[in-house]
Amino acid sequence: MTDRATEPGAGLTDGTPVVVEPEGRPFGDSTDPAELDGTGPGPVGLALLAELSAALGPAALLTDPDTVRPYVRDEAEWADYGTPLCVVRARSTADVAVTVAACARARVPVVPRGAGTGLSGGANAVDGCVLLSLERMTAIREISAGERLAVVEPGVVNDDLRVACAEQGLWYPPDPASAPWSTIGGNVATNAGGLCCVKYGVTRDYVLALEVVTAAGEVVRVGRRTAKGVVGYDLAGLLVGSEGTLGVITEITVKLRPARPVAPHTVVGFFDTLADCGAAVAAVTEQGLQPAVFELVDREVLGAVNAWRNAGLPEDAAALLLAQTDLPEPAARAEAEAILAAFTAHGATEAMASTDETEAEALFAARRMAYPALEQLGMGMLTEDVCVPRPRMAEMLARIEEIGRVHDVRIATVAHAGDGNLHPLMLTPHGDDAARDRTRAAFDAIITSAVDLGGTVTGEHGVGLLKRAGMERELGPEVLALQRAMKAALDPDGILNPGKAV
Amino acid sequence: MTDRATEPGAGLTDGTPVVVEPEGRPFGDSTDPAELDGTGPGPVGLALLAELSAALGPAALLTDPDTVRPYVRDEAEWADYGTPLCVVRARSTADVAVTVAACARARVPVVPRGAGTGLSGGANAVDGCVLLSLERMTAIREISAGERLAVVEPGVVNDDLRVACAEQGLWYPPDPASAPWSTIGGNVATNAGGLCCVKYGVTRDYVLALEVVTAAGEVVRVGRRTAKGVVGYDLAGLLVGSEGTLGVITEITVKLRPARPVAPHTVVGFFDTLADCGAAVAAVTEQGLQPAVFELVDREVLGAVNAWRNAGLPEDAAALLLAQTDLPEPAARAEAEAILAAFTAHGATEAMASTDETEAEALFAARRMAYPALEQLGMGMLTEDVCVPRPRMAEMLARIEEIGRVHDVRIATVAHAGDGNLHPLMLTPHGDDAARDRTRAAFDAIITSAVDLGGTVTGEHGVGLLKRAGMERELGPEVLALQRAMKAALDPDGILNPGKAV
Repeated sequence: MTDRATEPGAGLTDGTPVVVEPEGRPFGDSTDPAELDGTGPGPVGLALLAELSAALGPAALLTDPDTVRPYVRDEAEWADYGTPLCVVRARSTADVAVTVAACARARVPVVPRGAGTGLSGGANAVDGCVLLSLERMTAIREISAGERLAVVEPGVVNDDLRVACAEQGLWYPPDPASAPWSTIGGNVATNAGGLCCVKYGVTRDYVLALEVVTAAGEVVRVGRRTAKGVVGYDLAGLLVGSEGTLGVITEITVKLRPARPVAPHTVVGFFDTLADCGAAVAAVTEQGLQPAVFELVDREVLGAVNAWRNAGLPEDAAALLLAQTDLPEPAARAEAEAILAAFTAHGATEAMASTDETEAEALFAARRMAYPALEQLGMGMLTEDVCVPRPRMAEMLARIEEIGRVHDVRIATVAHAGDGNLHPLMLTPHGDDAARDRTRAAFDAIITSAVDLGGTVTGEHGVGLLKRAGMERELGPEVLALQRAMKAALDPDGILNPGKAV
Repeated sequence: MTDRATEPGAGLTDGTPVVVEPEGRPFGDSTDPAELDGTGPGPVGLALLAELSAALGPAALLTDPDTVRPYVRDEAEWADYGTPLCVVRARSTADVAVTVAACARARVPVVPRGAGTGLSGGANAVDGCVLLSLERMTAIREISAGERLAVVEPGVVNDDLRVACAEQGLWYPPDPASAPWSTIGGNVATNAGGLCCVKYGVTRDYVLALEVVTAAGEVVRVGRRTAKGVVGYDLAGLLVGSEGTLGVITEITVKLRPARPVAPHTVVGFFDTLADCGAAVAAVTEQGLQPAVFELVDREVLGAVNAWRNAGLPEDAAALLLAQTDLPEPAARAEAEAILAAFTAHGATEAMASTDETEAEALFAARRMAYPALEQLGMGMLTEDVCVPRPRMAEMLARIEEIGRVHDVRIATVAHAGDGNLHPLMLTPHGDDAARDRTRAAFDAIITSAVDLGGTVTGEHGVGLLKRAGMERELGPEVLALQRAMKAALDPDGILNPGKAV
């Protein structure tokens, strides 16, 4: 591993691929030595390429570095990635099965990927692997109002499914920030969350059944189509969030809900201190209120949004809370008023509720613009994803501020406040190695703090490569051993996305 | 196996235990020959008894046949059961760990059990086993409004948790019919459903974390306390519904909801035909209505309730549908009216809605009294638990009627209509071997029909012993192999509840 290998995008930008070996990846049998010195595939790789080309047609395979490049990594800027043997762009379950079976025989790693919007490096190439892209499997096979379910291929984009469901008066709730681009397959592989999971649950809560290609290249169906079912262990649930390490998902059956009545009430409050803000969040939960969205953005984000769009947000506020309630009227009004009262009672300096859609949109702009506004700063951005017990959020926010100070790292935080799920975004000047080291230290300190507070190192982004060390700290050796027993049971040769997650 | 062994309660009723060998149970290493001929424990068993008695104190052990008898089986009348070595009544996680570790060393099977209200034989003794009762672990360790969770020991009775939560304005929704007696540990082990899971989900949807004693006797914690989390595979989810075959659950952390506003609207409709009834259920689902309870009772049940309590229910109806809606007003009224309109539009002969609590209670009596009324008939009762896709419920009901006719078996059906989860109750005169054979044939035919219709052989009761053959038919060999790989990974010596579920 070279220094450059840890720099985002370094691997392929100047045409001389840098070899990156992700921690823990078992290279042994699976890669020809010739691949590792940059001279191209060795005999095992060449034979596999020939086999895949014959089976799938040459158009399904990408080997040219320029066409392969967009596939080698996800959006985790700091995660390492390697040089794949090729990209397979599967069009069908049969394509996937053929690919995995061939890789299994050749003992070549398979790294499945959807849209590559992940933030933990889970879809990053490992050296000599076949990158198995599901992006072309975009069919929505069925939407049933009578069964309240949809059957989709893994490459269906989240927003596309939402639109198709809405046309039938149905709703697929999981709404990660990546919804305009990310795929249902990727959402399932990482158990994606989003804004409205505070009330409506995460991806796992919606997966009924999966068609999966096993590590041996067999096609199996797990889960069920019925509303209920308790036959055997919940293999579908086990696959959700497994980041491509237990099987390749080729079809997904998801539960749907009836579409919601529109026109939510929006409530906002600015707070002078993080402690007040945390107390307001706690009060909303304790009072049994159930906002459908409950978000936080901190001072750094407010400043960045102002700088980008001259938004006129009060920059002396420590944080802004944003909530939406979607009950039927007049319960929605009552809930909005109760949330507003909780904000005011806990020190909100400015607080208001609105049902006006334009106004609500303006109020939510600070949340919606957070990422693009921070990107305008032109710095490297490392996204954290810790989640703590809800009553400890204020404490975690204070620790993040302190960690930023101690390590001299600029940290902007957005949070799914109602879930205790925080995304501190660490901003680092490009090309500043010392700043980079400080950021790494801050990243580790945030993880340690979250675990100390009874939290988890990843609330919704997944372990991928970035959280492997944190995961080991969180789970401990006994549970890790159980996790690895699952992996060994379903992928004994370790060909599925090796070195990721467990 | 003798004929008598298949008769409920035959094993111990006259003091001469009958040895029953459940299908598929690996006896090999685990049982002394001396145990199998009814002459008492052999040397391995005696040594284990001595070890457990020394470690736990003699009061924790039951070996006298009279005190052991209530523990040897659950409420599945038709499931086989064997003769245990002893019952251990654990008081703590440490007791459980000591017991499992000792059994693992001795290679003696461990059968965990809660209140024994199961309906599939999942808690039934296998010969020579240690029956590990969790009924004394009844502490509610924590209920937190701020985190919306409760931490309980496995022996806490479902209704007791509900009451304790209600005192803090919180609600634990899963409400199996056994809620006054069944334990949270047992509910988790079988992934119990209930009436309100049609809107609020089943036990799995509420389990956040588990403390588990592994097959090796180690204590581990899986899952999380936070609202979200995606670290590693979902081992807690895998344990839910695993019927004691992967680990012994010693502590459960469940999600809670805010308490609901009371005073639900109740809607009832009597239908002349099962087809009309099914069409009404389908219409309610398709219109996006979300009753919190949506039940069906058929003509046989109506007749039994009338016979028992002179309830004056119309016995010429093919079935009765009962729904409750719990939205905030006035949305509840609107939803109740929409349900009523759907009933009427699809041929309900009598239909009405009510908010009066006494009236609602009277209307629900037919559902609530179904089991006790059928018990008054003094017949053997075999409870089915198939679940079909919601739009196929009418078809399944018709098939059940037909199966009853063909096999000359009296079948009374209650159903969680909104879920497509049906409980045909097969009534068989005691001591009539021919009737018993016909009932078995009907039981098999119902399972086959459910699978044919895209359904499952068990919606909420679990596989236990009764549904093992059905499970094999439903899952097929490839998925069964994956299930067994899970079992082998977590319980390599097969000591945990052998012969049950997978």
